[in-house]
Amino acid sequence: MNAAPLDDLIAHLSRLPGIGERTATRLAFYLLRAQAPFRKKLAESLLNLSEIILCESCRTVTDRSPCMFCSSSVRNRELLCVVEKPSDIYSIERLNKFHGDYFVLHGLLSPLEGIMPEDLGLERLELKIKTSSTYKELILALNPTVEGDATASYISKALEKLPISVTRLASGLAVGSELEFADQITLGKAFEGRTRLR
Amino acid sequence: MNAAPLDDLIAHLSRLPGIGERTATRLAFYLLRAQAPFRKKLAESLLNLSEIILCESCRTVTDRSPCMFCSSSVRNRELLCVVEKPSDIYSIERLNKFHGDYFVLHGLLSPLEGIMPEDLGLERLELKIKTSSTYKELILALNPTVEGDATASYISKALEKLPISVTRLASGLAVGSELEFADQITLGKAFEGRTRLR
Repeated sequence: MNAAPLDDLIAHLSRLPGIGERTATRLAFYLLRAQAPFRKKLAESLLNLSEIILCESCRTVTDRSPCMFCSSSVRNRELLCVVEKPSDIYSIERLNKFHGDYFVLHGLLSPLEGIMPEDLGLERLELKIKTSSTYKELILALNPTVEGDATASYISKALEKLPISVTRLASGLAVGSELEFADQITLGKAFEGRTRLR
Repeated sequence: MNAAPLDDLIAHLSRLPGIGERTATRLAFYLLRAQAPFRKKLAESLLNLSEIILCESCRTVTDRSPCMFCSSSVRNRELLCVVEKPSDIYSIERLNKFHGDYFVLHGLLSPLEGIMPEDLGLERLELKIKTSSTYKELILALNPTVEGDATASYISKALEKLPISVTRLASGLAVGSELEFADQITLGKAFEGRTRLR
């Protein structure tokens, strides 16, 4: 409006998801007031994203291949967790409950969108399981959606000859939610997956 | 977690106001999927913020002094609008209703926080009014808060010898709100500032 660098920054920030013009303006003024070294570091980390590649073993985002997970000596090599996208790994790691290996599909089966089995790297997943020969359980941590269900079924069937059990994350009532407000399908899943108390 | 540049970016984005770790992760993955030229432009606009200075005439943020407003030949030189901070100018310009000049205080009177009259550049404001000699109305577009009220009173009194009328933005019911839910002070202001329909 009056300061080209500020207007450029607002325009660019406005293009980020969930950030409208007003939020972008607020962020830009925050950054303007911030220390120059902070802006420099933020800019550098943006530029450094170009160094990111996919791990050739598990297909997650990393700056070296094999990635930290695949080259680690402390991960549990009996569990292999399949996720749709790399950011799902961030959600799971934040939980700090799962310490096995990962494999990223980079999508879910969706014939309508042209995403077919060969796009999900299933051959590489099979190769990873065969090569390691330590995995006992394949955990499909996929969204409980139509595409997630179809992908889980497909993977389960495609790997049925391998000596590995295939599991899927539980579907049911969200903790802290009210039964009254759960949708019919979720409530149905909660009944199907009910657990024994004693 | 597994890719240093991505983790750095998430850490830096998390420091922005209103952006928690989950939003930062979502934004970082969006930026990772975005085209490299977009990231480069965003990084450049961040670095270019260092070029921003304050206009010596109106004290707003600009990349040249005098700024676009002060050097413009089409602004209405009869109106001078006083705001607390440069981002307020963005809010007012977005409205596209005011076309006069601006003056930025960079704060409001607050003895508790140590912000005294001399910190608000009131001498420069007086100089600006005297030098131009075209201003007929000084619009105090300050927040309707204790600090805003105190600052407005102070400025009005400090400039009482100048031949210029001093006004303040209307306080009252927000458009679209309900009278029932307005607080007592706002409702009182709405009564005081009532306007004649016929």
